Amino acid sequence: MREILDAVAAGELTPAEAETALSGYATTGAGRFDAARERRSGVPEAVLGAGKTAAEIADLAATAVETTGRAIVTRIDGSEAGAVRRELAGLDTDASVRWSERSDWLVATASGFERPAVDASVGVVTAGTSDAVPAGEAAMMAREMGADVTRIDDVGVASLARTVDAVDRLRTHDVLVVAAGREGALPTVVAGLVDVPVVALPVSTGYGHGGDGEAALSGMLQSCTALSVVNIDAGFTAGTQAGLIARQVGAARGGK
Amino acid sequence: MREILDAVAAGELTPAEAETALSGYATTGAGRFDAARERRSGVPEAVLGAGKTAAEIADLAATAVETTGRAIVTRIDGSEAGAVRRELAGLDTDASVRWSERSDWLVATASGFERPAVDASVGVVTAGTSDAVPAGEAAMMAREMGADVTRIDDVGVASLARTVDAVDRLRTHDVLVVAAGREGALPTVVAGLVDVPVVALPVSTGYGHGGDGEAALSGMLQSCTALSVVNIDAGFTAGTQAGLIARQVGAARGGK
Amino acid sequence: MREILDAVAAGELTPAEAETALSGYATTGAGRFDAARERRSGVPEAVLGAGKTAAEIADLAATAVETTGRAIVTRIDGSEAGAVRRELAGLDTDASVRWSERSDWLVATASGFERPAVDASVGVVTAGTSDAVPAGEAAMMAREMGADVTRIDDVGVASLARTVDAVDRLRTHDVLVVAAGREGALPTVVAGLVDVPVVALPVSTGYGHGGDGEAALSGMLQSCTALSVVNIDAGFTAGTQAGLIARQVGAARGGK
Amino acid sequence: MREILDAVAAGELTPAEAETALSGYATTGAGRFDAARERRSGVPEAVLGAGKTAAEIADLAATAVETTGRAIVTRIDGSEAGAVRRELAGLDTDASVRWSERSDWLVATASGFERPAVDASVGVVTAGTSDAVPAGEAAMMAREMGADVTRIDDVGVASLARTVDAVDRLRTHDVLVVAAGREGALPTVVAGLVDVPVVALPVSTGYGHGGDGEAALSGMLQSCTALSVVNIDAGFTAGTQAGLIARQVGAARGGK
Amino acid sequence: MREILDAVAAGELTPAEAETALSGYATTGAGRFDAARERRSGVPEAVLGAGKTAAEIADLAATAVETTGRAIVTRIDGSEAGAVRRELAGLDTDASVRWSERSDWLVATASGFERPAVDASVGVVTAGTSDAVPAGEAAMMAREMGADVTRIDDVGVASLARTVDAVDRLRTHDVLVVAAGREGALPTVVAGLVDVPVVALPVSTGYGHGGDGEAALSGMLQSCTALSVVNIDAGFTAGTQAGLIARQVGAARGGK
Amino acid sequence: MREILDAVAAGELTPAEAETALSGYATTGAGRFDAARERRSGVPEAVLGAGKTAAEIADLAATAVETTGRAIVTRIDGSEAGAVRRELAGLDTDASVRWSERSDWLVATASGFERPAVDASVGVVTAGTSDAVPAGEAAMMAREMGADVTRIDDVGVASLARTVDAVDRLRTHDVLVVAAGREGALPTVVAGLVDVPVVALPVSTGYGHGGDGEAALSGMLQSCTALSVVNIDAGFTAGTQAGLIARQVGAARGGK
Amino acid sequence: MREILDAVAAGELTPAEAETALSGYATTGAGRFDAARERRSGVPEAVLGAGKTAAEIADLAATAVETTGRAIVTRIDGSEAGAVRRELAGLDTDASVRWSERSDWLVATASGFERPAVDASVGVVTAGTSDAVPAGEAAMMAREMGADVTRIDDVGVASLARTVDAVDRLRTHDVLVVAAGREGALPTVVAGLVDVPVVALPVSTGYGHGGDGEAALSGMLQSCTALSVVNIDAGFTAGTQAGLIARQVGAARGGK
Amino acid sequence: MREILDAVAAGELTPAEAETALSGYATTGAGRFDAARERRSGVPEAVLGAGKTAAEIADLAATAVETTGRAIVTRIDGSEAGAVRRELAGLDTDASVRWSERSDWLVATASGFERPAVDASVGVVTAGTSDAVPAGEAAMMAREMGADVTRIDDVGVASLARTVDAVDRLRTHDVLVVAAGREGALPTVVAGLVDVPVVALPVSTGYGHGGDGEAALSGMLQSCTALSVVNIDAGFTAGTQAGLIARQVGAARGGK
Repeated sequence: MREILDAVAAGELTPAEAETALSGYATTGAGRFDAARERRSGVPEAVLGAGKTAAEIADLAATAVETTGRAIVTRIDGSEAGAVRRELAGLDTDASVRWSERSDWLVATASGFERPAVDASVGVVTAGTSDAVPAGEAAMMAREMGADVTRIDDVGVASLARTVDAVDRLRTHDVLVVAAGREGALPTVVAGLVDVPVVALPVSTGYGHGGDGEAALSGMLQSCTALSVVNIDAGFTAGTQAGLIARQVGAARGGK
Repeated sequence: MREILDAVAAGELTPAEAETALSGYATTGAGRFDAARERRSGVPEAVLGAGKTAAEIADLAATAVETTGRAIVTRIDGSEAGAVRRELAGLDTDASVRWSERSDWLVATASGFERPAVDASVGVVTAGTSDAVPAGEAAMMAREMGADVTRIDDVGVASLARTVDAVDRLRTHDVLVVAAGREGALPTVVAGLVDVPVVALPVSTGYGHGGDGEAALSGMLQSCTALSVVNIDAGFTAGTQAGLIARQVGAARGGK
Repeated sequence: MREILDAVAAGELTPAEAETALSGYATTGAGRFDAARERRSGVPEAVLGAGKTAAEIADLAATAVETTGRAIVTRIDGSEAGAVRRELAGLDTDASVRWSERSDWLVATASGFERPAVDASVGVVTAGTSDAVPAGEAAMMAREMGADVTRIDDVGVASLARTVDAVDRLRTHDVLVVAAGREGALPTVVAGLVDVPVVALPVSTGYGHGGDGEAALSGMLQSCTALSVVNIDAGFTAGTQAGLIARQVGAARGGK
Repeated sequence: MREILDAVAAGELTPAEAETALSGYATTGAGRFDAARERRSGVPEAVLGAGKTAAEIADLAATAVETTGRAIVTRIDGSEAGAVRRELAGLDTDASVRWSERSDWLVATASGFERPAVDASVGVVTAGTSDAVPAGEAAMMAREMGADVTRIDDVGVASLARTVDAVDRLRTHDVLVVAAGREGALPTVVAGLVDVPVVALPVSTGYGHGGDGEAALSGMLQSCTALSVVNIDAGFTAGTQAGLIARQVGAARGGK
Repeated sequence: MREILDAVAAGELTPAEAETALSGYATTGAGRFDAARERRSGVPEAVLGAGKTAAEIADLAATAVETTGRAIVTRIDGSEAGAVRRELAGLDTDASVRWSERSDWLVATASGFERPAVDASVGVVTAGTSDAVPAGEAAMMAREMGADVTRIDDVGVASLARTVDAVDRLRTHDVLVVAAGREGALPTVVAGLVDVPVVALPVSTGYGHGGDGEAALSGMLQSCTALSVVNIDAGFTAGTQAGLIARQVGAARGGK
Repeated sequence: MREILDAVAAGELTPAEAETALSGYATTGAGRFDAARERRSGVPEAVLGAGKTAAEIADLAATAVETTGRAIVTRIDGSEAGAVRRELAGLDTDASVRWSERSDWLVATASGFERPAVDASVGVVTAGTSDAVPAGEAAMMAREMGADVTRIDDVGVASLARTVDAVDRLRTHDVLVVAAGREGALPTVVAGLVDVPVVALPVSTGYGHGGDGEAALSGMLQSCTALSVVNIDAGFTAGTQAGLIARQVGAARGGK
Repeated sequence: MREILDAVAAGELTPAEAETALSGYATTGAGRFDAARERRSGVPEAVLGAGKTAAEIADLAATAVETTGRAIVTRIDGSEAGAVRRELAGLDTDASVRWSERSDWLVATASGFERPAVDASVGVVTAGTSDAVPAGEAAMMAREMGADVTRIDDVGVASLARTVDAVDRLRTHDVLVVAAGREGALPTVVAGLVDVPVVALPVSTGYGHGGDGEAALSGMLQSCTALSVVNIDAGFTAGTQAGLIARQVGAARGGK
Repeated sequence: MREILDAVAAGELTPAEAETALSGYATTGAGRFDAARERRSGVPEAVLGAGKTAAEIADLAATAVETTGRAIVTRIDGSEAGAVRRELAGLDTDASVRWSERSDWLVATASGFERPAVDASVGVVTAGTSDAVPAGEAAMMAREMGADVTRIDDVGVASLARTVDAVDRLRTHDVLVVAAGREGALPTVVAGLVDVPVVALPVSTGYGHGGDGEAALSGMLQSCTALSVVNIDAGFTAGTQAGLIARQVGAARGGK
């Protein structure tokens, strides 16, 4: 602990970096950022944009970049993304910011930040455009955890020939995330066609009885193939689970 | 009304036939049998065996044969079927009785009874053996309403090649009943492959969250293809709906 | 495939028509349109207006008209319908656009488009004005699939004489769609009066316990007459199912 | 209080009658019997047979006869009814016992007991035999509270002509209890035909989604006519509510 | 029918009155008004304001006054009530309009309209201010059906002495409507204190588990006293049921 | 650790006592007993009898007596209690065993065991006999934790005078456990009459909608007085929570 | 009563104080304030700001200060708090007002008001910032009831070392309130570490299946440690329950 | 295909092996066995014993051994296991049969069968003895798929020190299955301590609200750590998912 404080005194560490090193948490006016999460559980901490003001998001994102070299924000719209850009521009002129208009996430990295590299591939499969936000979150998280990620879209079961045509592309990955709304049959069909782990991601489309993703969730839990499942719209969780699987595979490939 | 009573007096009508002609209902100690149902709504009345004693079932079945020439009983086991056989043997030595061990139904007909003939075909599709009771009920009802019925079994979505192989057989019918338990994806997949009406029949297999057929039901209601649905295990209803569609098609073929 | 590409080169096919012919899907900035759906499953593809911007709807509608000769849009309001009109006016000055203010659908057709003609009739029955949107969707879909469609309104069970008076009109159709909200008793009552297939359509009226259409749905699934059911407010599905039944009947009438 | 104790001393009151007069409750080894309930709320106390042994039922029934002149027992089978008969035979050789085989209730009265007489009529309406237990309980309770009770059976909505035929009989009562299972539409249809209060009684028939009476209950709560409702199978409550209404009407007729 | 048409020709009936007499329904651009409902079932028809525009409400209210002499509107706010006033002012300068700011109902009557008079009293009981809208609806409906209605407020069970103090006021009525939200215990407590019928009205207060009135509804259905229940916030239904009971009592008092 | 092992070698500790001292758990063929639970969290460990054979219960009870001087068993019937008695008789002829026939619990203590003494009182309140099992469990647990426990029965809200009469007895305790089934109103009424903490215990009586204790649970969670609640039938938890509160009060009285 | 009226006449009591003394309720245009609640049940009355206008809140708060010396308001935002300040400034220039921006409560006290002092401590534990509103309410209520309250934040189970580190701080209190959203595991983990009563407070965070606090609530009710639970977001109830426990402990310490 | 038939003719293949090679399914009187499942999806087919007779299980197990060299049966009791042993003894005197008394599974292998070997480890973690059946199923399936499986039991969160002590053992595996009933907190706590994928397995312990595993399931879906989840008691699915992950890791280790 003395070393950390000496480093602060010497200007080698910012106070934020020091707090993080000491406690694992960095505190800002907008809340706390669990900078030690990645070290502890292999999962980078992310900021949930929904329910926060643009200023709060920008503040937390800046803290994240400062303490870990990277900020991951989910459920963030264009104007909020702009606020993050402006905040970071003042801190690190070489920081880079990517924002996904379609999937509502933002990743900002300090200059010099190096994403981990994992020698394993993740496929993220969807039936249609309504799955874009959670599937996009899943793909982003797996990628930020270092995996090689591919999107395989428009594989809906209502047009089965299309699903069958995708078999070869489905079989080339170490793990698949398969998103589906409405009746949620796609993960079941895909898992019957491949021999790798499938993480099923129910999406909150649908209406009436079983709407809001409940039909998809219960169908995936009942699947007659072997799936594991995450909560409705939990793209972050699905991508993280796929990323952790990819890490184990990649470490094994690396000779560990 | 006078004619009916005269016929009774003349021995041309049994009292039971007369009551039925007058009121539509035949009353026995075991309950009432709606003998006019078929004339009114095109659907033969059936006796639900579950929850009745063997003697009550036999009594109602005898009344059904006596008033309409046929008894249809669902959810009936072997010993109850024996009681029906014995009861009918005393009434009409030429009556014929068929009992399905696998699907728990019984159909008894008076000598000389003629089943309506409908020039239309119904396919009843299942994924596996656990769908036998409701799918068997559906097939029996459509057949008793006069349709030409074919069973197409073992078309589960977990083994997609098998489903695709069945496409030609699926496409040859005027209407399909598709039964499925667990996640209930089969009717969605089948309806994407054919251009005829599909009646989806959820089956009460499954366990845990969404068990007892609830996941299958909500998935079928949410299907991204165009299905109509009946209640869980309602094979009687599914077969009747298919039978009514077949009747309309058959009548059209017949030149109506 | 070569033929298609030659036709494009020769200007005989637009690129959108060619893409559709090759892949079944036409892609626009606003999403994808499954132009092959009708050929595959007998059901014309439709655009769900809810949740899309006016520009996106107009874009997809234009693609639909361009690739299949017709655009069907559901859940679309007046200003969105205006956007579709303006977009199409630029493409095909002879295109015709019908918009239902009461049922929120729009059908646009290219000049020269011919709707299929099916020799069968569909009755769409409602209890009151609150069923207008889903019942209107059902009627439109059955009509676009070629059936002869009649609306039979104000047949509520709270005033039974009215229902009984409608019996003759109810009995003249090949298939009925019956919509009802609140307790959803109308399809049960109607199915007891006719001998043709009834597709029950629960509507999301009601409040408190069982509101949002859940009471109507569960009552229809429990009906003591033989109904098949679609999800709450699923007018599109009910109309499509009725349309498929009508197609089978019409084909039979046509001498098949 | 002194008077009561004097009466016990003088042998004019049994100790059980005295305890009841003093505390309202009579205690037996089998539990407590709230003898004052009728005086307090107009509703005779009843013993629920379900979940008790034959000996406990007989004990409580004897206490009820001893303290209030009458025992009402619901959900009691034939052998339990025999135990009550034997117990009472030892106490009061002139006691009379009625047991309903069909509706599982028993009413025993001391010699000399006079049931209250209420100048008002209650109709108890059912669709079929499966409503026998709760409808029978409702009829018995209203009768024991003094009303003139009539059963109107077989008025199911699946055969509407039958319902319409019953209109005149339905309209002659001061209050109706209408029982129905499955989709529970009968009370709605009846309430549209009469201008007296209707108490709707959902019955736990049905299966699958909305089974166990839940569809009937939610349909009755959503009814587009004006019903009040009791819990599933709560025949006791429905009959009591009808009895209380009849008491008010009868008292008004009596010139109160 | 000829008489009606003659009367129209003679100017003795408006066309709207004639349509109503002939069909029971009066049609306006805003929908239909069931003018025959009161004659048929003893319950005056009412217009539900929620979900309609001010112009539609005013239109239907005017039709109601024109055909039946009275308009009853529920769930109507101040500006909508203003629109009704203006519409009616143009039709009948002597029409009177009452609007309840607290309970969101409006009653308009034509000059010369006479409300039925029923010689029976209804008590409407509440625990607190949050029950104002449904309790106010219930009181209004019972009053419009002719009963003598009294409000008994602030009788919450959390302060039991207050409930006990109200006993004498509770006991003077022929029927009680008791409204309660949250845990809904008040109707149970009141029904234990009186010997007249109690109609329980659950109110959609509360939050978290069992919120939106579901805890109150299920508690009232489970009550260990004898209640009948209406749906959550169904003040209209509760008041109507109480009004029908009062009508029977009043008719009996009147010497029927 | 050495000391413990030495004590075993010297015969001063049994092996079971030694294992418990070392690991906190004692292992038997029938499962594990967490002997350290009381030291860690103030709550004595108990054995749930339901789902275990008589031999398993006897085995675990013997281990409990051996390691902690006392065995607490819940949901145990008479013949299982006999098995425990026989098992313990062989171990410690002076052990004492109490079994509650009404509430299905058993407490066995080694000779010389001294129950903790807590200077605080707990009242356990019920409405009727159907609450006996969970209320008895609660009373037993609070007593075994050392509190002075009093039962206050027959305080049902359907007979309010009775509840009001009990006020003085209710007010003399430091904490109350109030059990209720059906609509579960009693804890709300009681908490409005006293100024001490009330722990509400819902009981799984009731039937139909909200049965199995769900209505009682949701009513208690919605209570307009300040209650804390435990799960349905969780008498063990309610008594433990009351016991922990009593411990804090007793410790304070003891001069802490 | 005469004394009170004399005191009003003499100007020694305001009319509001007199009404409160006489009836326990003070009535304002905005509703009623139960001034006697604290005397009756030990719990100060509070005003729920949600659903009221700023003027109504200010009116009720002024009445509360006038009749009991203190106003407690929950779910109140900054501008509403300003309205209260302005209202009170006109009544009592020495009144003090505290508003919590983070937890949305306001406490106003008359000059000279003395909060009760209770010699007992309450710990309020949270996992993170999303629990701020209900946890803040709980802390405020316990403090206003006189307890010594400490907040212990950031003790989430996802970072277990942090929880373990907090053990010593958790163990120093007489009672703990533990708030948690999502899966709600924190109260279970904390209760395994301490030997004082834990009141579990589920928070309405989370999404998808089990969202809105339902997963947290059901997990706390199922906890394998001994918790009592309040409804979702019921910080007021949790704090009150903790306050009542603290009062009993404090009274015991005080030598009662 | 000719080759297969030649081999049958030559006695090199049994008819059952030939049918399997041709169709993937082997049919017996007791049902069908999907012998091709392992080749297609990497998951060995298993027989669910529950709901089958001992004779049916033995028949299917014999077919499985004959066609794939191994039979895996779940939910099988001791007497059924005996039937399997006797059946196999007649077929292959060197077949070996293992039956788990505690977890109700059976694995039978033909002499010479070699289980796949996967160079990866799976940890199966439980809180207590009530998780034995599903956790045992999970461990068995992962082992049969070739993984190196370790059980880590008694890690309940109610005794947190125990969980913390297990950290080192938890961290040595490539993937963990964590089973828990009641509130289901263990997977959340474990996932916060390790950096490998965790598959959460809810178990149907618990009672009252959220019982039957629903509280555990919803808590795991809401977990604030990154879990994937399977259905309640789906030990087969959890073990299979872990086995598929281990296969990918093992293949990577093997130099793929």
